[in-house]
Amino acid sequence: MQSPDELLAHIRQKKSLLCVGLDADLHRLPEHLPRSAEGVLAFNKAIIDATLPHAVAYKPNLAFYETLGYAGWRTLEETISYIGERAFVVADAKRGDIGNTAKQYAKAFFKRMEADAITLSPYMGRDTVEPYLGYKNKLLFVLALTSNPGAQDYELQGDPPLWERVITSMGQMIGEAEIGFVVGATRPEDFARVRELAPDAWLLVPGIGAQGGDLKGVLENGLGPNFNLLINSSRSIIFASGGEDFASAAGHAAEGLAEQIRDLVDFG
Amino acid sequence: MQSPDELLAHIRQKKSLLCVGLDADLHRLPEHLPRSAEGVLAFNKAIIDATLPHAVAYKPNLAFYETLGYAGWRTLEETISYIGERAFVVADAKRGDIGNTAKQYAKAFFKRMEADAITLSPYMGRDTVEPYLGYKNKLLFVLALTSNPGAQDYELQGDPPLWERVITSMGQMIGEAEIGFVVGATRPEDFARVRELAPDAWLLVPGIGAQGGDLKGVLENGLGPNFNLLINSSRSIIFASGGEDFASAAGHAAEGLAEQIRDLVDFG
Repeated sequence: MQSPDELLAHIRQKKSLLCVGLDADLHRLPEHLPRSAEGVLAFNKAIIDATLPHAVAYKPNLAFYETLGYAGWRTLEETISYIGERAFVVADAKRGDIGNTAKQYAKAFFKRMEADAITLSPYMGRDTVEPYLGYKNKLLFVLALTSNPGAQDYELQGDPPLWERVITSMGQMIGEAEIGFVVGATRPEDFARVRELAPDAWLLVPGIGAQGGDLKGVLENGLGPNFNLLINSSRSIIFASGGEDFASAAGHAAEGLAEQIRDLVDFG
Repeated sequence: MQSPDELLAHIRQKKSLLCVGLDADLHRLPEHLPRSAEGVLAFNKAIIDATLPHAVAYKPNLAFYETLGYAGWRTLEETISYIGERAFVVADAKRGDIGNTAKQYAKAFFKRMEADAITLSPYMGRDTVEPYLGYKNKLLFVLALTSNPGAQDYELQGDPPLWERVITSMGQMIGEAEIGFVVGATRPEDFARVRELAPDAWLLVPGIGAQGGDLKGVLENGLGPNFNLLINSSRSIIFASGGEDFASAAGHAAEGLAEQIRDLVDFG
């Protein structure tokens, strides 16, 4: 387990904002690995070892583990144990449920699984986030403006748009855990507005890489005073090669993206 | 596994709309049961056997299983197998993620877990629901208007309010699976509007029982022409007694609620 302060120390020490998405799609594993929960664990371990010099955080998306049933959940737990104190872990779970139930999710991810952060869906309102606030040294990334086409359906509707109302109202909540936001890289022009609304909040930024987001625009507009932003890339790193060299290829891809970040950010 | 048509057959045969929420909070299990995943499985099996004459569906909320880690997921899989062909199963997962990831969730719940329905969160838009539509004979319950205080934060904001826009836009999507909606029982006056927007859609109605919803108002305003509505009750049934008589007490509580429903609905 790692606190947000320890994440910041990783960022300063490695001069990187890179978060690697551990979305180990069974059908894209290298051919020499078994297509099973065990194969995913072996894949994750090799990816972690190869990318660790360049990555400050890892973000497993729960879907890729749940699709393997309970054995997949065990693989996820084992992956997080394997990371241990070496990096920050974001459970990309996008949970959102009423207080009584949210309490159980908070326990599942923060106590049982020992994740350092979780992604949360705000649809049902603030009382669905409250139970997570009781956990010290944890980060809550609430979905705000996502990078998929469907963001047009509800997030971008209204005046102010829903995503701005989510940042404003969720941002007012205070607890032991810190509230941050998920903002997709495909709309870099909106990051200036995000920073008006939430100058100091941690941001988790997916959409760089396979989804084609604009790294320069994101960092110019979105980087807070304290480097509190994570650039997530999943497929373009972990599936950089589908051969036996998958781990070293992932390491090179991670190094490449970390260097791009370093070219754009003055880490001092 | 059961199709929506088979659910309807259960409803007509049992003259019941009752869905029992299998939210087996470890700390509320009867004292004689072990406080473990195995204890939860034993609890669930006894509750299912006792309530089956009166219930047409069961709705495990994922949080109560995830809090037990991978052993909890196994218990959930075993619980769903135990129900088998005897009733309809709604996985209350409230998932919501982009297409690539949603595909994995759909596989997790419909192929691996063999649930008949899933609850989905609409925040990220229609493309997060699309991948589930490819599954024949499944039901998707999209969150619309929920029964918690936080419904005021976003769902009820806007003109028309967000929850109405969700019903209208999601309701236009067509696929092999059917789209229904979650509408909380604490706002029975809104069910007339729900039926204007979605006359034929399946509704999943939580909030009766512990949350104090109004059964009469819900059924008068919300029942479609085809009995396509599920009344969910969790805690007030499964924890009707904390003693060794927990199963028979749950059976009586389920029978009581089914009778209240029968008094209000003409099943013909």
